[in-house]
Amino acid sequence: MQCLRPLHHASTLSPAMAGLFHRRLRLRTALRWMSPLSTASPPAVVRTLPPGFSSGLLQTPRPVSCGVHCRELHAGEERPTPSPTAAPERRPFSRVTPEDMAFFSKIIPGRTITDPDILEASNVDWLKSVRGFSEVLLRPQTTEEVSQILGYCNSRNLAVSPQGGNTGLVGGSVPVYDEIILSTALMNNVLNFDSVSGILSCQAGCVLENLSLYLEDSDYIMPLDLGAKGSCHIGGNVATNAGGLRLLRYGSLRGTVLGLEVVLADGRVLDCLATLRKDNTGYDLKQLFIGSEGTLGVITAVTILCPRKPKAVNVAFLGCESFEQLLQTFQLCRGMLGEILSAFEFLDRECMRLLNTHLKLANPITDCPFYIVIETSGSNPTHDEEKLHQFLEEAMTSSQVIDGTVATEEAKIKALWSLRERVTEALTHDGFTYKYDISLPVERIYQLVTDMREHLGDRAKSVVGYGHVGDGNLHLNITSPTKDPDLLASIEPFVYEWTARFQGSISAEHGLGLKKRNYIYYSKASLAVALMGNIKIMLDPKGILNPYKTLPDDLQ
Amino acid sequence: MQCLRPLHHASTLSPAMAGLFHRRLRLRTALRWMSPLSTASPPAVVRTLPPGFSSGLLQTPRPVSCGVHCRELHAGEERPTPSPTAAPERRPFSRVTPEDMAFFSKIIPGRTITDPDILEASNVDWLKSVRGFSEVLLRPQTTEEVSQILGYCNSRNLAVSPQGGNTGLVGGSVPVYDEIILSTALMNNVLNFDSVSGILSCQAGCVLENLSLYLEDSDYIMPLDLGAKGSCHIGGNVATNAGGLRLLRYGSLRGTVLGLEVVLADGRVLDCLATLRKDNTGYDLKQLFIGSEGTLGVITAVTILCPRKPKAVNVAFLGCESFEQLLQTFQLCRGMLGEILSAFEFLDRECMRLLNTHLKLANPITDCPFYIVIETSGSNPTHDEEKLHQFLEEAMTSSQVIDGTVATEEAKIKALWSLRERVTEALTHDGFTYKYDISLPVERIYQLVTDMREHLGDRAKSVVGYGHVGDGNLHLNITSPTKDPDLLASIEPFVYEWTARFQGSISAEHGLGLKKRNYIYYSKASLAVALMGNIKIMLDPKGILNPYKTLPDDLQ
Repeated sequence: MQCLRPLHHASTLSPAMAGLFHRRLRLRTALRWMSPLSTASPPAVVRTLPPGFSSGLLQTPRPVSCGVHCRELHAGEERPTPSPTAAPERRPFSRVTPEDMAFFSKIIPGRTITDPDILEASNVDWLKSVRGFSEVLLRPQTTEEVSQILGYCNSRNLAVSPQGGNTGLVGGSVPVYDEIILSTALMNNVLNFDSVSGILSCQAGCVLENLSLYLEDSDYIMPLDLGAKGSCHIGGNVATNAGGLRLLRYGSLRGTVLGLEVVLADGRVLDCLATLRKDNTGYDLKQLFIGSEGTLGVITAVTILCPRKPKAVNVAFLGCESFEQLLQTFQLCRGMLGEILSAFEFLDRECMRLLNTHLKLANPITDCPFYIVIETSGSNPTHDEEKLHQFLEEAMTSSQVIDGTVATEEAKIKALWSLRERVTEALTHDGFTYKYDISLPVERIYQLVTDMREHLGDRAKSVVGYGHVGDGNLHLNITSPTKDPDLLASIEPFVYEWTARFQGSISAEHGLGLKKRNYIYYSKASLAVALMGNIKIMLDPKGILNPYKTLPDDLQ
Repeated sequence: MQCLRPLHHASTLSPAMAGLFHRRLRLRTALRWMSPLSTASPPAVVRTLPPGFSSGLLQTPRPVSCGVHCRELHAGEERPTPSPTAAPERRPFSRVTPEDMAFFSKIIPGRTITDPDILEASNVDWLKSVRGFSEVLLRPQTTEEVSQILGYCNSRNLAVSPQGGNTGLVGGSVPVYDEIILSTALMNNVLNFDSVSGILSCQAGCVLENLSLYLEDSDYIMPLDLGAKGSCHIGGNVATNAGGLRLLRYGSLRGTVLGLEVVLADGRVLDCLATLRKDNTGYDLKQLFIGSEGTLGVITAVTILCPRKPKAVNVAFLGCESFEQLLQTFQLCRGMLGEILSAFEFLDRECMRLLNTHLKLANPITDCPFYIVIETSGSNPTHDEEKLHQFLEEAMTSSQVIDGTVATEEAKIKALWSLRERVTEALTHDGFTYKYDISLPVERIYQLVTDMREHLGDRAKSVVGYGHVGDGNLHLNITSPTKDPDLLASIEPFVYEWTARFQGSISAEHGLGLKKRNYIYYSKASLAVALMGNIKIMLDPKGILNPYKTLPDDLQ
């Protein structure tokens, strides 16, 4: 998933901002790959400009100033071991010719973008950690157009990077080299909403927040909610199997997505756009595309089951002395709040310190080692408040919780939620951030933070933990004053080995994208990865769809 | 899914019963295929005994008396069009040799069954509508044993029919010819249960009801519940993507199954047995095996997310004047009961008549055209009762509901539920039954029943509708005094064409198995079916796993 609202969203940059961005591009020296994760062991084969780039827009590519995440690679650098996060060499795809451009312009007149200022926003991810060098951005409006584009690209062996809201965190949503960017931005129509069943059908480019607003009139909500909702597209959510804040209550997209329309690599349209809750006629093909990060097909439309809008929402912000008490509180909470529990999130004391220091957010309760955000959503305000108060009384009486505050009105609810949601923002002010999105058995999730703290000693500036307790999903973040290859070498592969030791997932909801593709073996067996490779070959034999992503280099 | 508790469960027949069954087999003339669905257009190529059957147990195969579902085929019959439900010709798999038997006996000593009495129960489905002629039943206890068996069978080109509780309704769980039956019956250990997260890991052969009982001590329940729970295996539930009575509340197995261990056709063990709620590292391979009916691999272990046991359960049995009122009640119910609604089922007046006539079950309320069973499950009995009463008051006041009764104690709850659950049983007493399991947009589901009634006129004895309103899932059943090829010809393909016209599914939860494999095109596009064929070839290139099932003959 795309976690937390982007502060600076590349794809929504104003033309003026995009222009500035572009000018900076041309003012500096070559910079190709800027992942904060790639600083430990720079690539043996440093990416030099591919031959095609000797003319055109990127004739003299220059680096982007990208704040804390930047890192420069100089042609000719030789290192012994390639970083697993560095991009592999460009594969021998064709390069876009004037004839290709003429074809695209004919298919989608006026929507074949080559303006470098506009392209810039689609070439760089919102973390500004990776960039591609695409010279063509296509904005189809219909499935038929996507079909024609892909059919053509496949026959011409042109690589394609599908893009939704470009809010991903693992470098999956921007090109790596000169892949054609296929944006779903103009595919933003609601196709149908059935207010009896709550089943919504829409094009892939609908922005999540717009869908939520659309449903409000009918008293429904989307079954998922993320910080990036103002920018992310539903097609991208599905392609990355986004998790987010409502997963605890409404389950994963594997259950709520009822149908998909997908254009395959060769342009054929796979219509699995069912609007049915149940359908056991053969293999469930749509599941292949959920979470495949655009590497198996381009999702063009989605049907999704929407829950009724809750009539009452309450939020409690509580403090605990230990993580054990936090887990006990979770258990108590599940028993006493039961069906109205819609979120159980946590942050640690270090997170609160960063919120205080960098964002001047005040702690509404006593200082504690751990803080919990509990949300309830239900159909009867009186019942919900009663349940919540009974639970709080029990939690306080049994000393599981030291202090707490409850909000029922929207403004205060937002204020309490912001303590959880703005941790990412606070981290960006703390220094260079190494980010990890780990899934573990729930009783283990904080042990990784304490072990990491001990392991790093005073080499790190801050080591903080927060995340979705209800889903066993920890966001571990480590900061240092500046980027620090030695620190990174201490973190990785330690963090992945630790996770693998407890059968965790090295990417709970962010996916693998470009940055984590080679770490897949920490969470998946070799046979499983090999089968994934077979599926890729079956559906995209030329490998034109989102190359260099998701699958490890040894399979690409 | 396997819907409603079997009255006579083949795999649980006592040895005496099995013996009787077998003796009857030898007393009658050849009968190979007994599907009630196959009577319209008997096959052009009538299945004659394959050469291998000229010796051994089935030297002189004779028909089984199979009550109302029986139909006899006589060698030499020639008909112009093969029935889409008839089995295709036996494929050129190897036949079991004494050397093969020696190998199996070495791998699983004492668990290689050739006793025809025991085999009989595994050769015939519980509807007694199809039968196979396997001479070998294997009962492995471990994944390693399954792996060795499949590796061997694949190398020898021996076909295998995986079998769980044998409670399927579409002929998917028994062999068609002489496939080796691979039973999960002895793979019935719970591997782990984490009472913090509610995640259960167990072997595939655990009986669903046993798992429910196991969880009771820890205050959890299984996320699915079916009538066949006393016999069906969790591996079979997953392999058929079982739906059932709790789907409305806890969602489909696509969301609740967290991990699977699967033995592939060639014996390799695919370990996707994660115990994590979130894991976005690569393609979600386990989804391929959910609902693939044993045709892509043999599920040997499952991890599944279990919900907390509700502290209060209430059931209301209501009557409506029209299906429109029933739908209005559904809407009202979802709004007012919200998060505690756990089932919304219906049956029509005709169902009630059959319950009265054949099972002597009394209608607890006024005679109505439609009856609803509503179940609530929640964490606070007082709140739940209050919500239910508020809803009922509103429903009665607005005249959506004419009459109703509510149960809070277990015995009365069971009695009300039995009015819904025993419709299948009542139907078996009414005559020869043609059964359809259709998914439709919820507002359409009863229209199919009325259209069918009108279409058939007095040619049918009864045309009844019941099912899961909340899931848009209709069980349409048509009876006649005896099997009636002309009636069947009037029902099919009418029912499938009608369903396809409204983008419904011709198999909502029962799967395709042997009986419905060739109807897949009514619900799935040709491209989708072709891709399914590619997946089958990728995972089981020799086609040894559950042949003749799920995929249509043109792909087999």
